Amino acid sequence: MAITAKWILKSKKMDIKQKYIDEIVNDRASGASELARRCLEIAMDIIWRIQTDGVREMKDEIEIFVRDLQNARPSMSPIKNMLQTWLDDLRTLPTFTLQEFRLEAMKTAEDLRERSLLAVEKVTRALLTILKPNSRIMTYSYSSTVAAAMKLCKKNGVCLVVSEGRPLFEGRKLAESTSADGIETTLITESQIGIFIKEVDLVVVGADTILQNGEVVNKAGTCLLALAARAADVPFYVACESFKKSQQTVADVELERMPASELGIDEKPYLQVANYYFDITPAELITAWITEDGVRLNN
Amino acid sequence: MAITAKWILKSKKMDIKQKYIDEIVNDRASGASELARRCLEIAMDIIWRIQTDGVREMKDEIEIFVRDLQNARPSMSPIKNMLQTWLDDLRTLPTFTLQEFRLEAMKTAEDLRERSLLAVEKVTRALLTILKPNSRIMTYSYSSTVAAAMKLCKKNGVCLVVSEGRPLFEGRKLAESTSADGIETTLITESQIGIFIKEVDLVVVGADTILQNGEVVNKAGTCLLALAARAADVPFYVACESFKKSQQTVADVELERMPASELGIDEKPYLQVANYYFDITPAELITAWITEDGVRLNN
Repeated sequence: MAITAKWILKSKKMDIKQKYIDEIVNDRASGASELARRCLEIAMDIIWRIQTDGVREMKDEIEIFVRDLQNARPSMSPIKNMLQTWLDDLRTLPTFTLQEFRLEAMKTAEDLRERSLLAVEKVTRALLTILKPNSRIMTYSYSSTVAAAMKLCKKNGVCLVVSEGRPLFEGRKLAESTSADGIETTLITESQIGIFIKEVDLVVVGADTILQNGEVVNKAGTCLLALAARAADVPFYVACESFKKSQQTVADVELERMPASELGIDEKPYLQVANYYFDITPAELITAWITEDGVRLNN
Repeated sequence: MAITAKWILKSKKMDIKQKYIDEIVNDRASGASELARRCLEIAMDIIWRIQTDGVREMKDEIEIFVRDLQNARPSMSPIKNMLQTWLDDLRTLPTFTLQEFRLEAMKTAEDLRERSLLAVEKVTRALLTILKPNSRIMTYSYSSTVAAAMKLCKKNGVCLVVSEGRPLFEGRKLAESTSADGIETTLITESQIGIFIKEVDLVVVGADTILQNGEVVNKAGTCLLALAARAADVPFYVACESFKKSQQTVADVELERMPASELGIDEKPYLQVANYYFDITPAELITAWITEDGVRLNN
């Protein structure tokens, strides 16, 4: 009977962990920062669910689970970075009882979450130095930082052009949100980027990761927009919190490939359907990187 | 009674002319060459429907109808060019009876149609000098010339990458056709062009119009593909019959704007939805223009 109860408990723990991993794997709508903060919330919940006898075993179990979370979305550095910072912080905690450890680990995670939110707020404010009154702005996909900045400067008469963001239409989500806020918004297909780039003053996009040499991993299509901006002599800004900086190089990046079915067409003999979510924009196409530490111009 | 009968006849003629104009306006699937040849077929039919007493009146009525046809798709030069050539030919015809004129005008139109088909065939063969065995080729939208060339060299082990072609999915139509023919085809979103350009040996696209200075009017998104090809050092070829050459400059071009509803989202206050079908690729991004007259390299 005791064995059965333990088995049920273990099976339940497995279920919730897998459920959380699946949530992160399948969340195609949230940006990398949002997902990273969500991972910290998940970690805070898991701490209370892990049943062990000591702090050491608890740390080991947390580490295993965190590795799985980090690997759930390999293209999204903030998840890796934020969880790694948390693990590093946990290692430096003094020896506690199990209960004290749980409380401290929670607090550490919550601090990181707040640091991230504060960073995003700072980036948003830094962005406002770029988004002059009446600016015509083009962006790509859905960046919560860009969305927040647009909200803040909507009284400035700025207007926005964004492409729909096939296959999951994150650009459409942004357009719905900014137009509902009273910002003049034009929604286009990705294919019209080359036409509309000539109608805007600047481009600003978010990022999933900033690589070691300044290259930007972001939603597939970003590098096309950067090329179009360069050809039209329009400045191209990348705005994100510094948690998104990574020591990875282009060679290290594994681009996530998602199900072909999202394109609404089945694969068959001789017909492959590709659905990569991210691409890499070379540093030389970027005018400046904007983080909570300020605006860094590309020299 | 006689007046009534005449009125009915006139109203019927109006209907068929308007029906034909509507057909050309609403045909979003056919390429410019196909549509131009279809316009000649329509003209051949209209010649037999126009009821006049003399050749001069007939010529006047034809000219009025042809102008309407030419204006039905202002971005598509082959329609303008082919019909203009036909009108010019008609003017040089000797004085005939009405019936003789009808027959000669028919013959002239049919000759032009055949000249166009022969030109496309020659372009296809010229393309084969570019599409080496095992070439990995990227294209854009649906060009009947490119489709025909792919069919001809499918035993060479060539493979094709094409993006879906929002909003009407002409690229998907091409991918369905080439894969059914046994050509290894990869279908992507427009947003993945920057990723897949690095995987191909060359790009070849059709054209709706080649402008005076070599710029190419083609399905919106073509200029993004050309920018990506240049950045990846991949040659970019344009293949089409010479009827597509125009004396227009970039300043003369009116880009067709189609209904927003094709994007599947409604306009509302503060939200505009744009749906331009064509963009212009600058000549400097083009490696060579391939017409029935041969391959002209860009110097």
